[in-house]
Amino acid sequence: MASTFTTTHRVEFHETDLAGIVHFANFYRYMEVAEHEFLHSLGLSIMEKRPDGSTWGWPRVSAKCSFESPAFYQDVLEIRVTVERIGVKSLTINYEFWRDETRIARGQMKTVCCIFRPGEPMRSIEIPEAFTSQLEEHSES
Amino acid sequence: MASTFTTTHRVEFHETDLAGIVHFANFYRYMEVAEHEFLHSLGLSIMEKRPDGSTWGWPRVSAKCSFESPAFYQDVLEIRVTVERIGVKSLTINYEFWRDETRIARGQMKTVCCIFRPGEPMRSIEIPEAFTSQLEEHSES
Amino acid sequence: MASTFTTTHRVEFHETDLAGIVHFANFYRYMEVAEHEFLHSLGLSIMEKRPDGSTWGWPRVSAKCSFESPAFYQDVLEIRVTVERIGVKSLTINYEFWRDETRIARGQMKTVCCIFRPGEPMRSIEIPEAFTSQLEEHSES
Amino acid sequence: MASTFTTTHRVEFHETDLAGIVHFANFYRYMEVAEHEFLHSLGLSIMEKRPDGSTWGWPRVSAKCSFESPAFYQDVLEIRVTVERIGVKSLTINYEFWRDETRIARGQMKTVCCIFRPGEPMRSIEIPEAFTSQLEEHSES
Repeated sequence: MASTFTTTHRVEFHETDLAGIVHFANFYRYMEVAEHEFLHSLGLSIMEKRPDGSTWGWPRVSAKCSFESPAFYQDVLEIRVTVERIGVKSLTINYEFWRDETRIARGQMKTVCCIFRPGEPMRSIEIPEAFTSQLEEHSES
Repeated sequence: MASTFTTTHRVEFHETDLAGIVHFANFYRYMEVAEHEFLHSLGLSIMEKRPDGSTWGWPRVSAKCSFESPAFYQDVLEIRVTVERIGVKSLTINYEFWRDETRIARGQMKTVCCIFRPGEPMRSIEIPEAFTSQLEEHSES
Repeated sequence: MASTFTTTHRVEFHETDLAGIVHFANFYRYMEVAEHEFLHSLGLSIMEKRPDGSTWGWPRVSAKCSFESPAFYQDVLEIRVTVERIGVKSLTINYEFWRDETRIARGQMKTVCCIFRPGEPMRSIEIPEAFTSQLEEHSES
Repeated sequence: MASTFTTTHRVEFHETDLAGIVHFANFYRYMEVAEHEFLHSLGLSIMEKRPDGSTWGWPRVSAKCSFESPAFYQDVLEIRVTVERIGVKSLTINYEFWRDETRIARGQMKTVCCIFRPGEPMRSIEIPEAFTSQLEEHSES
């Protein structure tokens, strides 16, 4: 069974718009920050320099979010993170945003493991074993 | 046949991240700005005060984007906007981002027509006839 | 003697730019968030609805920041907040950003106490007594 | 006499906040974008790779802005750019934001010419002669 990582975000003033609610584009930033906190909680890093001078990172393949109820300034949002799928080179993670008993939004991001070398296009690689073993206990079964 | 509205965006420095590419969350802002320019080109407004003091707007129901190739500082992105579906209360629009012959990203946003009244929760309404008649010539099929 | 309120911010990925450092415009958001946390710590709110339907807020008069050393992804910045001056209608607050022993930046924001009424221009007012008495113990003497 | 470079910005929805006005932190992005457009208009670039692998850029030393009148969604702001001072290593530029006859804000940014080399701290250098000669006709006095 999947275990869920949970973090919180308190809505900041600059995240609202003239409709008086959180502007939707902020939820994609929220997902990324929650993803990074989740990976850190497992001792994993989103970006790492390697001995050969290349860097190893996770660019986004796709991201989607559906908005069920508006969020307001100073709301404390609980963000629930669950691994949906660990592929050979890609990782799909689900996000739910809650304010108390109200679900605010549901999102999903797919990222792909890549190598960046200065002056070369980035190239996808297989997810390192150290990563997959750590992630497996958080994945939907 | 669908006609396509086209606009452009020149990538700004603050839109890049330390991987040297446009940070993915900006594409959701780009979609919104392109949507507003498209509606303005039809003489329509995204938000309108009505005589009874209420405001009429288009909150997002969902937004997704897939990223096919990175975009860089100073790239001029062509954004192609096509109406996917005009529902009774909702509107689904497709977005493609191109740099010359390279497709950078493809997205879709669904918005719902709503009334905002101070002190009340927002409420969805049928899309006004003036809107749908203008939008129809840009819709698929 | 002034007492100082302290909060922290961990630099997020989307706050960096292609130079590999925190983009300078984020520091103005950081100051605002620190200001709100400081006021909350005193039991004060940045924005309040009043019984007569008006809202009471603190628009910015000016904000400046000087940048002494770059900040990087995942840095934990300590933000030190001190009241510089409590005027009749305005409030001037100083901010310092530190990473361990390195001062990253120094800023200052001046805000003015205002009333917002729907359909009217905002109007400056004297800072309520409840505010000034709470703020005085944090001000430079 | 100083000549002034002028550009415009149409306020976007996501730049507003729940007070119904442009959030102040956006003005620092506006200044940067106007600065880049101004330099491009002179055939100069804000960031350039050099034959030795280093990059040449202009990190901010300080930026300030004072806010005189609120700006609203869809306002077209005229941004007037004038060079205040060309130093040996630094450049100080003034910005004014106008909506028709109303001055919205006034700002100033000081940047310093720097060399970035991978793995080294950035280092300030004298502004290249090609830059200063182009800038002089836009400077005050």
